[in-house]
Amino acid sequence: MKKTWANSGLDLHLDLPTSRVRAGLETALRDAVRDGRLHPGARLPPSRALAADLGIARNSVADAYSQLVAEGWLTARTGSGTWVTPHRPRRPRAPAAIPEEIAPPRYDLRSGVPDLGAFPRRAWLAAARAALNAAPDHVLGYPDPRGLPQLRNALAGYLARARGVSVTGDRIVVCSGFTHALALLCQVLRARGGTAIAVEQYGPQAHRRIVRAHGLRCLALPVDGDGAVPRSLGRAAAAVLTPAHQFPLGMTLAPRRRRDFIEWATASGGLVIEDDYDGEFRYDRQPVGAMQALAPDHVVYAGTASKSLAPGLRLGWLAVPAPLLDEVIAAKEAAGAHASGPDQLTMAGLLASGGYDRQIRHARLAYRRRRDRLAATVPRYAPGVEVTGIAAGLHAVLRLPAGQSEAGLVAGAAAHGLAIEGLASYHTGGTSHGPALVIGYGRPAEHAFTTALARLGAVLAQAAGAPAPAPPR
Amino acid sequence: MKKTWANSGLDLHLDLPTSRVRAGLETALRDAVRDGRLHPGARLPPSRALAADLGIARNSVADAYSQLVAEGWLTARTGSGTWVTPHRPRRPRAPAAIPEEIAPPRYDLRSGVPDLGAFPRRAWLAAARAALNAAPDHVLGYPDPRGLPQLRNALAGYLARARGVSVTGDRIVVCSGFTHALALLCQVLRARGGTAIAVEQYGPQAHRRIVRAHGLRCLALPVDGDGAVPRSLGRAAAAVLTPAHQFPLGMTLAPRRRRDFIEWATASGGLVIEDDYDGEFRYDRQPVGAMQALAPDHVVYAGTASKSLAPGLRLGWLAVPAPLLDEVIAAKEAAGAHASGPDQLTMAGLLASGGYDRQIRHARLAYRRRRDRLAATVPRYAPGVEVTGIAAGLHAVLRLPAGQSEAGLVAGAAAHGLAIEGLASYHTGGTSHGPALVIGYGRPAEHAFTTALARLGAVLAQAAGAPAPAPPR
Repeated sequence: MKKTWANSGLDLHLDLPTSRVRAGLETALRDAVRDGRLHPGARLPPSRALAADLGIARNSVADAYSQLVAEGWLTARTGSGTWVTPHRPRRPRAPAAIPEEIAPPRYDLRSGVPDLGAFPRRAWLAAARAALNAAPDHVLGYPDPRGLPQLRNALAGYLARARGVSVTGDRIVVCSGFTHALALLCQVLRARGGTAIAVEQYGPQAHRRIVRAHGLRCLALPVDGDGAVPRSLGRAAAAVLTPAHQFPLGMTLAPRRRRDFIEWATASGGLVIEDDYDGEFRYDRQPVGAMQALAPDHVVYAGTASKSLAPGLRLGWLAVPAPLLDEVIAAKEAAGAHASGPDQLTMAGLLASGGYDRQIRHARLAYRRRRDRLAATVPRYAPGVEVTGIAAGLHAVLRLPAGQSEAGLVAGAAAHGLAIEGLASYHTGGTSHGPALVIGYGRPAEHAFTTALARLGAVLAQAAGAPAPAPPR
Repeated sequence: MKKTWANSGLDLHLDLPTSRVRAGLETALRDAVRDGRLHPGARLPPSRALAADLGIARNSVADAYSQLVAEGWLTARTGSGTWVTPHRPRRPRAPAAIPEEIAPPRYDLRSGVPDLGAFPRRAWLAAARAALNAAPDHVLGYPDPRGLPQLRNALAGYLARARGVSVTGDRIVVCSGFTHALALLCQVLRARGGTAIAVEQYGPQAHRRIVRAHGLRCLALPVDGDGAVPRSLGRAAAAVLTPAHQFPLGMTLAPRRRRDFIEWATASGGLVIEDDYDGEFRYDRQPVGAMQALAPDHVVYAGTASKSLAPGLRLGWLAVPAPLLDEVIAAKEAAGAHASGPDQLTMAGLLASGGYDRQIRHARLAYRRRRDRLAATVPRYAPGVEVTGIAAGLHAVLRLPAGQSEAGLVAGAAAHGLAIEGLASYHTGGTSHGPALVIGYGRPAEHAFTTALARLGAVLAQAAGAPAPAPPR
C-alpha cells in the first residue's frame, strides 16, 4: 500500500506498510532525509495534519518524529514545529558488497605461507568444542593481557621440550603472530630511548616496515654462509635474528655467531629477538635448539602457529626476559589487541593432547617429501641452478647462474600462471648474494604441487637456453 | 639403567636409557651444562673415551657433541677437543605452573562485563564448524588488515539495519575490541600531529590510559543530564563519546548536543569517535540510531561483540570515514595485530544466519528482567537511593543520599562477598555528580543474581541506618 503526502510545498512518496505503521513511517522519513528528498531546514507538517493525511493515529506520527529528533535527523522547537536538521546529511553510497576473494595466482610458489589445505580443520574444531564446553565462564571475560594461563603453561612445557627454550608460564606472552610481537618490542625499545634495530640484510620487508613505523631505524646485518654477521650493530637497541633457519637464505646461525651476538647483547644491554618462525621443520637432523636458552635474560624468543598451523589464526608467543616483562605487558595493554579466549583455549588443548605434535610430525613428513622432489627436479631441468637452504623450513633458495635475471624469471613464470619471487624482494642495502629465486614449496595444495614444480622446471630450463619441455596442464 | 662417568676431574651422573642412547646422552649433557654440573670452560672427554666408558658407539657420542655445539652449549676446536662454552648458562627456574584462575569475588555486580554464562556456546561452535568446513583455504592465510570481506559485508548490512550506521563493507575495519580500535585511532591522530583527545569526564580509566600511552593528553568533557557537554574541546583532535548510553552515567546524548559535536567536528576538522558499546540493549523504546549517520565523514563508529556476546572473543569493528581509511589500515599493519580468520568467519556466519539477532533478543529480554528487578528491589531496602541510567545497557547508577560514602559501601559489600564499584572509579577531574554506585546487573550468572541483589539491598539498608536484613546465603 502506497500513500503520498503533499504539504507545505513538500511532495514525498512514503511507502508505508499496512502493519507496523509507526516503524514504517519512521524509516520512510529517515530515508527521505538521508536521500535529500527532505532538505535540511525543511519544515515538516504538524503531526496531526500528517496523521490525518495518512489515515493513521496521531501518536504514531508523534512517536516517529520524536525518535528521529532523538537521533538528530529532525529538530523540534516547542510550539513552533519540526524541521529537518540543518546540516548536510550524507547520501549513502551504493551498498555494493566487497568481493570475497581476489583471484589468486593459479600456481603459487611464493614463500611464507604453509599448505593451508593441510590445516587440521577437524582436529581444530574438535579441540575448540572440547575447550569451550569445558571452559569456566571467566575465560570468556576480558583477557589477561599476557594470555590465558592454560595456554601459557602448555606453551612453556612445549617450548622447553621441543625447542629447548628456558621459560616458565609466567614469562610467556601470547600475541597475534610475530608481527604483533615485533610491534610490541619496538614500542618497548622506543620507550626506552632506542633509535635503531638491526635486522638481517635478507628478510621480510614487512618486518622492516614495522620497525620504521615505530620511529626506529633499520640497520642491516650482513648475511654470509654462517648466517647473520655481528657487524654494523652500532647503537642498535636490538638485533632480530632467525638462528634456526635464516629467512630466506636458509642457513643455521653458526655456534660462534650465536655466542658473538650474545656477548654483544650482554656487553651493550642490547636485546636479541629470536624469530623462530619454522624451527619445528628440520629435516636432516633433530631441530637446532633455540638460542634463547643460552641467555634467557638477553634473548626474547618468538614462536608462532603461522607455519605449523595457519597464519590466519594469528597466534604467536614470546618468552620474555624477566627484566622486560612489565614493559611488554604495558605495551600490549596500550595497543589494546589480544587473542581470542576460545582460540587460546583451543590451542592449549591441542598442545596438551599431543594433537599439535601430531600435526607437526605429519606436516614435517609431507614438506620433507616436497623438498626432496624439488631438489630432484631442479637439476633435471636446469643443471646450473643450485638448490640451497633446504635443511629446514618450507622454502628453498635456487641460486641462478651469474647473469640470469631474477625479474626475467619471475615474469616468465607469471606467463605460465606461476607466482614466484626473486631474492631481491627480501633484500635491503648492498647485495652480497648473486641472483636467486626464493621458492616456497610448502604453499601449493597437495594436488597442485606436481604441476607447480613442472612449470618451475620449464621456466628454469627456458632461461638456461635448454629446449623448454611443454608445460604440463 | 644408570651409568656413571668419571674423567678429567669431572664426576657426572648421566642417566642413560637403554634405547635411544644418543638422544639420551644429548639430553643428559645439556641438563648437566644447564644445571651447572658441567661448568663453563670445563673440558669434555674425547668422544672415543666417553664412548668406551659408557659402552656405546663412538658415533653416538660424536653426534651428541655436535648437536650441542650447534646449539651453543659446547664449543669444539679442531684438534684440541670439546669444552663447555664459557658463558654462564642460566639455571631454569622451578617450572611451577601459573594458577589458572585468581579466585573471583563470590558475587560480582561490577559493570562492564555481560553474563558470560549466557554466551551461546552451542550456537558459536555450530557456526564455527559451518564456517570452517565451508571456508576456502585462503581464509586461513595472512589476513587482509581490514578484516575478511565476508565479515565486513555482513557487518555493513547489520549496522545499517540495526544501528542506522551509514557504511559499506569497504569502510569497515575489523579489530580486537574497542581498546584496539581506540589505540589505532590514537596512533593515526598522533601521526597527524594531534596532541589531545577529549573524553567524557565519566568513563573507563582504561581508555584514558590508552590515550595517554600514545602521547596524547586527555581533555575532560563535563557530563550533565543531556550527556557530554561540547565544552573544553580546546585543540582536541577527537572527542570520544558514548551517545546511545553514556558510560557509566546512562543518559542518551541529547539531539542538540549531537549536532553541536558534529558542528565542532566539521568546523575544526576534529573527529567524533562514537563508542557504541551497548547500543543493542535499549529497553523502553527502540534503539537510538547511531550518531555516525549524521556525518559519516566526521564520525568513526565503533561497535563490539564484547557486551552482545563476550569480551573474551576480542571482536570489534569500526566504520571509518573515507578520508581516514588508509591511515587506519596503515596503523593496523604497523601494530601487527589482527583477529583470527576462523573467528571472523564464525561471526559473519552468525550475522548472516540471524543467530546474532536471536542472541541479542534473548539477552535483551533477560537483562531487561534483571533491570526491572534491580529497580524494584533497591527502593524496598533503601528508599533514599535513586536508580538511574536504566533505559539501556547492562548497568545502572544508584545515586546515594548526600553524605553517604561510596568507599564505605564498597567495603561493606566486600564484607558480604559482593564486589561493587563507586562512581569515583570512573571519574577524572572535578566532580559534578554526587556519591553513587555503578551496578553491573548483567554480570552475575543467572543462578547468582537473586542473592547478589539481596546482598546489595542489605548493604544499602545498613548504610541508610535501616535494620539490615540477614543476608541470604
